[in-house]
Amino acid sequence: MNLKISLAQLNLLVGDIAGNSRQIMDAAIFARDQQGAHAIVFPELTLTGYPPEDLLLRSELLERVEQALDEIAREVYGVDIILGYPRCQDGKLFNAAGVIRDGEIIAEYFKALLPNYSVFDEKRYFESGTEPCVVELNGVPVGLTICEDIWYKDPAAHAAAAGAKLLLNLNASPFHTGKAVEREELIRKRSQEIGLPIAYVNLVGGQDELVFDGGSFVVGAAGELTQRAPFHQEAQTLVEFQAGTPVTGEIAPYPDEVAGIYNTLVLGVRDYVIKNGFKGAVLGLSGGIDSALTLAIAADALGSENVEVVMMPSRYTSDMSNEDAIQQAETLGVEHRTIAIEPAFNAFLDMLQEEFAGTERDVTEENIQARCRGIILMAISNKKGKILLTTGNKSEMSVGYATLYGDMAGGFAPIKDVPKMLAYRLSEYCNREREIIPRRVIERPPSAELAPDQKDSDSLPPYEVLDEILSRYIEHEQSTREIIDAGYDAETVRRVARMVDRNEYKRRQAPPGVKITRRAFGRDRRYPLTSGFN
Amino acid sequence: MNLKISLAQLNLLVGDIAGNSRQIMDAAIFARDQQGAHAIVFPELTLTGYPPEDLLLRSELLERVEQALDEIAREVYGVDIILGYPRCQDGKLFNAAGVIRDGEIIAEYFKALLPNYSVFDEKRYFESGTEPCVVELNGVPVGLTICEDIWYKDPAAHAAAAGAKLLLNLNASPFHTGKAVEREELIRKRSQEIGLPIAYVNLVGGQDELVFDGGSFVVGAAGELTQRAPFHQEAQTLVEFQAGTPVTGEIAPYPDEVAGIYNTLVLGVRDYVIKNGFKGAVLGLSGGIDSALTLAIAADALGSENVEVVMMPSRYTSDMSNEDAIQQAETLGVEHRTIAIEPAFNAFLDMLQEEFAGTERDVTEENIQARCRGIILMAISNKKGKILLTTGNKSEMSVGYATLYGDMAGGFAPIKDVPKMLAYRLSEYCNREREIIPRRVIERPPSAELAPDQKDSDSLPPYEVLDEILSRYIEHEQSTREIIDAGYDAETVRRVARMVDRNEYKRRQAPPGVKITRRAFGRDRRYPLTSGFN
Repeated sequence: MNLKISLAQLNLLVGDIAGNSRQIMDAAIFARDQQGAHAIVFPELTLTGYPPEDLLLRSELLERVEQALDEIAREVYGVDIILGYPRCQDGKLFNAAGVIRDGEIIAEYFKALLPNYSVFDEKRYFESGTEPCVVELNGVPVGLTICEDIWYKDPAAHAAAAGAKLLLNLNASPFHTGKAVEREELIRKRSQEIGLPIAYVNLVGGQDELVFDGGSFVVGAAGELTQRAPFHQEAQTLVEFQAGTPVTGEIAPYPDEVAGIYNTLVLGVRDYVIKNGFKGAVLGLSGGIDSALTLAIAADALGSENVEVVMMPSRYTSDMSNEDAIQQAETLGVEHRTIAIEPAFNAFLDMLQEEFAGTERDVTEENIQARCRGIILMAISNKKGKILLTTGNKSEMSVGYATLYGDMAGGFAPIKDVPKMLAYRLSEYCNREREIIPRRVIERPPSAELAPDQKDSDSLPPYEVLDEILSRYIEHEQSTREIIDAGYDAETVRRVARMVDRNEYKRRQAPPGVKITRRAFGRDRRYPLTSGFN
Repeated sequence: MNLKISLAQLNLLVGDIAGNSRQIMDAAIFARDQQGAHAIVFPELTLTGYPPEDLLLRSELLERVEQALDEIAREVYGVDIILGYPRCQDGKLFNAAGVIRDGEIIAEYFKALLPNYSVFDEKRYFESGTEPCVVELNGVPVGLTICEDIWYKDPAAHAAAAGAKLLLNLNASPFHTGKAVEREELIRKRSQEIGLPIAYVNLVGGQDELVFDGGSFVVGAAGELTQRAPFHQEAQTLVEFQAGTPVTGEIAPYPDEVAGIYNTLVLGVRDYVIKNGFKGAVLGLSGGIDSALTLAIAADALGSENVEVVMMPSRYTSDMSNEDAIQQAETLGVEHRTIAIEPAFNAFLDMLQEEFAGTERDVTEENIQARCRGIILMAISNKKGKILLTTGNKSEMSVGYATLYGDMAGGFAPIKDVPKMLAYRLSEYCNREREIIPRRVIERPPSAELAPDQKDSDSLPPYEVLDEILSRYIEHEQSTREIIDAGYDAETVRRVARMVDRNEYKRRQAPPGVKITRRAFGRDRRYPLTSGFN
């Protein structure tokens, strides 16, 4: 039997049931009328967007979901609509996938495996389903599964045992480096194992710290990849099954590693800024690599005309920094302005003179400078309705080499999960066609320029070493003992671990940013502030 | 058979396995030698403290737990030690209670019911146990249960079916208003239901946003309360069972509602500051009720000699505010200083003149003032190693009536979960013996004093109304429709709900504070920042 299914890789808005519902109906009508599809499949929790978090505890949300399901059923005939939504039954909430056909929900599946690790909290909201669901689409028995279900054998095997000849998997699978390959390898293995083709539909778009990267795909019963939608953009891909076998279609390429990360950052920034209704973005451009990279991402995400930068030199800022910052702003054609922080910095030093009598100069004065910059930037953000983008990288956030309410101020932190060494690789990527980021910015030794002749390497191990230790300690949760045994200097490892542990309080007040690694700060890593663990 | 058990209501430090272990051994030796106890029972997850959060994912933590168990077993003979710890078995982690007797663990129970709602994430870490555990203590068969287990019937019934004549319940039950009564009523009902006495041991002390309030207690088989340890302090209470029946002992009183909340705030502040190693606290005293209450709490928590306040008047600050602030500081004998913010405020206005050319004065200029104060306070905090206490209340935090990096700056926010009307009741409580908080501070209309003649009531509904709406919307998750149907003005309700929804981004960057209500901000309420729900 011939079966055509449209895979709707959409960018949805969490909580916007009415808007998501309109997108669903438009896509369904397109699938029916333009693609000649028998059915259309959407990502996990289509109606609410993913993850809806504690909105799931609000009765209004569930009421609106019911209304939207009624409306979709009433409005769209002639194509089977397979979509995700929360479903309350006997006082329990399920993460459901339903099939709407000609005015009614003809079948419903409840997700069996609920992820409750990393960024996921599904057991906070949902109960596990226990039954497979197989439904005939144009005569082909199709088994429904949702995201995590496909990562383990049972749900797929149960659907196969219940007669499915093809599996659909509705997903909201967020990006991290290497994840797309991991997904495909796993689903190919699963399809070989059960001997059935699998169509995997992913969400696309940014939601707070997560970016869903799309790349929906289809594998045949022998695990062969037959079709793949593009990454990082919406797509509505028609897949055709002939006699139960997927016809080979277009296979969009994987972006290479650095390009995939860059595109993720751009999409994450764009969606955060636009979905939250900002008029554009402002950021402080220091002449250093982190703000240079952040500017490049912001310009790609929002358009140069929607980005404004401010240079805020102090007595410690080198001419080189000012020159390089202006050069990049002009290359990109973004609005730029210089506001020296000396008047405010001096005012604070005067105001605090009595309070600080008899004390030594220390990091306090460095923080005051960073915070003067924070005030300037937040004032522009407040006055103009532009979001302030924070420019700190993951290495700094890890060890606390950043000032709360100073350079940490802002609404979104694009490269918060980008380790310093990766920031260099991303900067080279930005310059692949022309020199967006001035060469000197990439090549000079990193400095916060908050004290005379200051360099990051005065207080931190070289980033080559630091990033390796951080990756082991944070992303792979190795113990200091394991890291030392892997050949790193014992004192350095212990010092770095101590810095990470002690700076949890700063990270707790940091703006959100895009997760790109296996373990980001934020919902992904939940450490106590008060802790005697060291 | 006679059985004497010591209930060890301890204040532990999360992650400090060695320190907690020492406390356990000291308490066990005291129970054996001074109390003549046969056994001692500790709170849930005694060795790690509660909640250890993602420290549970670190292999080092689990290794240290094993070492500590070995050490306790080796060091303390002659008394049965019943304590909590994470236990890894067959690659699964359990929330365990073990019985150590004369050198070995003779029995182990795995928690069956794992809370994964509100502030709890236990399914992120643990698997559910399935077996009851009954162990003879001085000849009496005793069933072990852990916290959530006792809130439902099954685990207690299983222990009873397995022959238990008495149940022990190891807890880490955090405070919220009314919780102590709720706990006792429930456990009394449970003991009646299964016809067995229950000894309930709670943790005490602050851990980030949670305060465990102690109040351990014992009920007889008919549900009668026979003994209760004090609230908000450590205690080691001996309970005696004769022929399976608890002998009536001392029953520490419930504090009344406002006193219970006040004591919770004081304990939460004290433990956060001390456990995190600060040398004291600093805060901005405005002449308003929130900072006045925060100061009273801080002085009770840390001692007046460890608290410093700063008055930071602007052109909009009334003389009354300055006078009242100084009066309270002098009444309490805390160090105080006045630093006018005009020089820095003026410097920023000048620096931004060009950038802001042609724009109207708006909330931006108010925020600059608040942020100048933030810089002053953080500078003092940095220079002196004193934690900055943030003075905002829950009503403000809810509707976003606060400035990020301004009055929201700080390491800990004592009254973050205290609605404004409750702040008045707490202030009256502070004045129960003498006038700590000047009368005029309590009686004048609330104002942020960031613009001429500004009053909170210019932008917000009266707090009597606002707090009711907020409690329904946030704590009870009522829909706007339900709140309007309860008799509140429709436009006001919708406006308040909108303000709450829109200000999630501010709360995400707020410092932690003590949870005292059914639903606090923080781990307790996980809302998306990007959301189309309204």
